[in-house]
Amino acid sequence: MRIEIKRAIYEKNDQLAAAINARLRARGVFTVNILGSPGAGKTSLVRQVAERLHGPLAVIEGDVSSDIDTQALRALGVDAWQIETGGDCHLNAPMIEAILGKMDVKDGSWLLIENIGNLICPAEFVVGEDLKLVVSSAAEGHDKPLKYPAIFGRSAACVLTKLDIAEAIGFDEGAFRKGIETVAPGLPIFPLNGRSGAGAGKIAAWLESARSAVRK
Amino acid sequence: MRIEIKRAIYEKNDQLAAAINARLRARGVFTVNILGSPGAGKTSLVRQVAERLHGPLAVIEGDVSSDIDTQALRALGVDAWQIETGGDCHLNAPMIEAILGKMDVKDGSWLLIENIGNLICPAEFVVGEDLKLVVSSAAEGHDKPLKYPAIFGRSAACVLTKLDIAEAIGFDEGAFRKGIETVAPGLPIFPLNGRSGAGAGKIAAWLESARSAVRK
Repeated sequence: MRIEIKRAIYEKNDQLAAAINARLRARGVFTVNILGSPGAGKTSLVRQVAERLHGPLAVIEGDVSSDIDTQALRALGVDAWQIETGGDCHLNAPMIEAILGKMDVKDGSWLLIENIGNLICPAEFVVGEDLKLVVSSAAEGHDKPLKYPAIFGRSAACVLTKLDIAEAIGFDEGAFRKGIETVAPGLPIFPLNGRSGAGAGKIAAWLESARSAVRK
Repeated sequence: MRIEIKRAIYEKNDQLAAAINARLRARGVFTVNILGSPGAGKTSLVRQVAERLHGPLAVIEGDVSSDIDTQALRALGVDAWQIETGGDCHLNAPMIEAILGKMDVKDGSWLLIENIGNLICPAEFVVGEDLKLVVSSAAEGHDKPLKYPAIFGRSAACVLTKLDIAEAIGFDEGAFRKGIETVAPGLPIFPLNGRSGAGAGKIAAWLESARSAVRK
């Protein structure tokens, strides 16, 4: 019974997400669903790639509570919009549908969706994205791919942050990469320093090429 | 309809959790539900306090996938048991009931339950605990209390880890404490170095006094 309810929720969500994606694609909008733990560096990634991607760009920020990140992005001139779930542990397609009705996303835009800080539930709910990016911080430890295989397995690339404190924290990058090869073989891994922006150029270039590939 | 289903799930879980807690208390077992993000340092906390608490001790480790932490604790001689949820984002009372049937928890024990790495859903499901501890790492950033108020609001104390990298990461402890005062006024905050164990003595002493208070 519980499984049937869950399946019905997923199916309804999947259908709406597919409709959102088709509508956005028809207008040349490319949508990225950004996933990761609390404090992994998702907002820093958004900030750094927003400066480097070509063309118009809009951001949807998901949080359980507060609009701290949206305010910070707006202060930088980014067209950012907040979804505050009030307790829900993931974004879903109906939430995206509702906020898109308020936004004025330009044709040909990038649409970056920062999901709720959570390595589990957001992996289960598509929101209309063309691809998922997972952000993982060295501070979380190198065992995260083996402990949370679904989110790594469903992402098109992994952004690895806070490597400047890897040694202090005892983070073993080799073990992290081995974990990735076990749960998501071939997943590209992009190091990023969220504060200096080192590494963001490569991520932006990869996103541009992924977008070109989808358009073909 | 969805809200009614959720309420029914919570009520059933709450009832079983209350029964588990009553049964454990009658045998002098004191149960701690340990919450926090992936990589916050929950297992390090367990390891460090396990060495310092008086009397018999058992540990239940919750993970979506893998038994890495249970194996590591067993290698140290800790009586640790794994719950692998296979996708579920929190532990619940039925999972605890099931694993307690396999364990041999001694009368008068400490029972430490390490919940799934997640700052959201585990706050909603009691599992038979006497109190909750939330572990937050400096690497996650100082805005976590304001972003995840429920989990801080429902915990009896907060363990703050990885302060040795606070400066490198730009963690503002004053802002963190201000956030705690907003969402959980008066919540005790215990710094812990998970590797050296510095700070663990105070946490163990606080747990001993919390246990004595409950017994009165």
